[in-house]
Amino acid sequence: MHTPYRRLAALLAPDEISDNAALLTDQRRRYTGRADLLLQPRDTESVRKIMRFCFERRLPVTPQGGNTGLCGAAVPQGGVLLNLGRLNRIRSVSTADNALTAEAGCILQNVQDAAAASGRLFPLSLASEGSCQIGGNIACNAGGLNVLRYGTMRDLVMGLEVVLPDGELVSHLAPLHKNTTGYDLRQLFIGSEGTLGVITAATLKLFPLPQTRETVWAGVGSIAQAVELLALVKSRFGERLVSFELVGRYALELSSAFCRAAPPADAPWHVLLELTDSESRADLGGLLAECLLENGFDNSVLAQSETERRTLWALRENISAAQRGLGASIKHDIALPIARVAEFVKRCGAALQAAFDGIRIVVFGHLGDGSLHYNTFLPGVSDNGVYAFENAVNDIVYAHVLACGGTIAAEHGIGQVKRHRLSQVRSAAEIALMKAVKTAFDPHGIMNPGKLLPD
Amino acid sequence: MHTPYRRLAALLAPDEISDNAALLTDQRRRYTGRADLLLQPRDTESVRKIMRFCFERRLPVTPQGGNTGLCGAAVPQGGVLLNLGRLNRIRSVSTADNALTAEAGCILQNVQDAAAASGRLFPLSLASEGSCQIGGNIACNAGGLNVLRYGTMRDLVMGLEVVLPDGELVSHLAPLHKNTTGYDLRQLFIGSEGTLGVITAATLKLFPLPQTRETVWAGVGSIAQAVELLALVKSRFGERLVSFELVGRYALELSSAFCRAAPPADAPWHVLLELTDSESRADLGGLLAECLLENGFDNSVLAQSETERRTLWALRENISAAQRGLGASIKHDIALPIARVAEFVKRCGAALQAAFDGIRIVVFGHLGDGSLHYNTFLPGVSDNGVYAFENAVNDIVYAHVLACGGTIAAEHGIGQVKRHRLSQVRSAAEIALMKAVKTAFDPHGIMNPGKLLPD
Repeated sequence: MHTPYRRLAALLAPDEISDNAALLTDQRRRYTGRADLLLQPRDTESVRKIMRFCFERRLPVTPQGGNTGLCGAAVPQGGVLLNLGRLNRIRSVSTADNALTAEAGCILQNVQDAAAASGRLFPLSLASEGSCQIGGNIACNAGGLNVLRYGTMRDLVMGLEVVLPDGELVSHLAPLHKNTTGYDLRQLFIGSEGTLGVITAATLKLFPLPQTRETVWAGVGSIAQAVELLALVKSRFGERLVSFELVGRYALELSSAFCRAAPPADAPWHVLLELTDSESRADLGGLLAECLLENGFDNSVLAQSETERRTLWALRENISAAQRGLGASIKHDIALPIARVAEFVKRCGAALQAAFDGIRIVVFGHLGDGSLHYNTFLPGVSDNGVYAFENAVNDIVYAHVLACGGTIAAEHGIGQVKRHRLSQVRSAAEIALMKAVKTAFDPHGIMNPGKLLPD
Repeated sequence: MHTPYRRLAALLAPDEISDNAALLTDQRRRYTGRADLLLQPRDTESVRKIMRFCFERRLPVTPQGGNTGLCGAAVPQGGVLLNLGRLNRIRSVSTADNALTAEAGCILQNVQDAAAASGRLFPLSLASEGSCQIGGNIACNAGGLNVLRYGTMRDLVMGLEVVLPDGELVSHLAPLHKNTTGYDLRQLFIGSEGTLGVITAATLKLFPLPQTRETVWAGVGSIAQAVELLALVKSRFGERLVSFELVGRYALELSSAFCRAAPPADAPWHVLLELTDSESRADLGGLLAECLLENGFDNSVLAQSETERRTLWALRENISAAQRGLGASIKHDIALPIARVAEFVKRCGAALQAAFDGIRIVVFGHLGDGSLHYNTFLPGVSDNGVYAFENAVNDIVYAHVLACGGTIAAEHGIGQVKRHRLSQVRSAAEIALMKAVKTAFDPHGIMNPGKLLPD
């Protein structure tokens, strides 16, 4: 170990130093980094001590949460790997304020559970909720399943506690719904992927627990018809609409075979939608079914039991697993204006078919918030070979996304994997402003170097 | 007119130059400013032309919307007054995306009307909605009546078009619910009070129109009991809860006499609450009344008609008018954690009584989002005399707000009036970061000098 890192280690308790090399590789095993020192501080004060030392010596620091990111943002390229996993206390819950204060290292599911134990819902929900951490969710502005009703992580954060690169603490954890006192610096940390400071705690919004849940699978003739259905259900049922998932015929075929369950409907496109209500209401399912029928959406099934509901969701949730049989894929984290999803799917599909003969495209996603999973399979290409085609496929996909007013990074962030593409969605003036913000917060460039911003 | 301003005027169409001196005084007639040139550009391109010129010549520019601000943020201190009122087109409405794109100078009520004409709700609502403008609402992160359900303006902005101080255009108006591509610069403009650039257009979120509305007036024994009622109704009825107003006995007495309407209940504290639902539901009022009764809130009245509903709201809305008979007042734009409102009212009231013999305090506000109107009347002090006591009263009020984890600027902003107090709610490190952000965006300090940030 180099001298400064040895000195830093000596300032800390022995159990704050880790030798867990697994932390250096990301979940997808796409990136393996290196670090001079792996730290797992016990508390915010210890984070401050580490940052003060690193700031003075100009040592790079990469903050890390549950290490479930998909863009390599938490994989260090030398220096200190600062894993926040031990800052894992739920500090407080206020039912009067519908707010919960959690430390950055709390696992998302533990936060959901703590809210439920107080009779409240914390709505952020995503595939890795059993291991991802709140600090990481904030640092990448996580999205997930419930954005349609509850927004992204940005919408769920009422307050932050942050350690600045020089060790200074900025703490605003009071649950305030209205507060306009200068530039909202908190918003910069949300989605900054550890490049501006270290998030150590957050005050999060809570909601009433659902008492009623109704789930429908509907076959529709086109994406345009799915968009009509969305507008209909949203206008009628308002915030009750919590999920509105689009599934293409091909995706359903794969998943149906994988689950050994018959498709609930025969149609080119499918919608899985769910309503929840904080009231106990026996009539909600009937009202929903009636609303669909009256408006011509008659190729649909209302789940009559929790078992039927789970079967419908299994068809949606197993698409990713089911498609693995197709070989290696190039996946996309994109979002579009809802009104333009149909146009994108048509045009981009045609362009990909023209460029890559035999390409298979599995289309599904959260139509309710405009984000799509758009997975492309090149026949006969093995796992390792797929990256050779990645740029060529992405050039086509992203060009169509941008032509339709969409974004190339909806909810996974930029990290290492899309750094070189940031200039496709942000102008030179904007990137210059981002770099100036970065310099203001992190004058020595020690926070998570090599991530998010292009060189 | 000084030479550079004459040159600037010559670059513009004659109808882009104004001589309306009324724009130099704020709504409350507290501040009267001065300007070398009053401009009302026709479109975004004209704003760019003006900014490019002012950037090169280092001329100060004060953006202005409807000039309804309460903190003097839109009153110029020389240079160009840039009134955005002519950028008043609704550019588009997308019902599929529940989004509307409006230019900055659109009057709030016109945006509400355009949304309603498309069968949607734009929920921002505040007293000056007939004259305030969307750009100003964004620049000061307006709050108002519906924050409990729909959030502040920050929560309602999906995209912004901004002209930077050097004339560069940054435009992201596509309705995207998920988009994490670098630092969210948009959030800096929201609440920046015209100090970072000129907002020229915005894409706003729309919601379903309410079809059902139920209103209750409830007398309660204490603020703590009002907070219990809030938790009860919110848990049960979720997002349907759109208003939850607290009214003190004294405020009700004043308003009741002013309106010549009997108080709906006899109690030390009162709550006016309202539910709305996008569904047509005959039973909602009954469910609400039953829920209150079952939980011991039996001193309450459910409005049985639109006339009864309006009478209840008149008692709330006329408090400001009714209290004018008490003389000159010192008002506060504060917000607190809901769980601590009772403690604040008790302690701050006692401290004010001890310091100012005979002081009368009118307490009411949006308990549902923690913000309070806290109006203090010094007996025998005339309108002009009141400002002599302002700092002394505010010192006491703000000390108690801060001790309870609250904020001294909930929804009106900082402007000129609270500049010297920003350091009470933001640390030196935070203010230094804000100044660095300001320098990054506005290197020559031409944007709205003398506002928001302390010297």
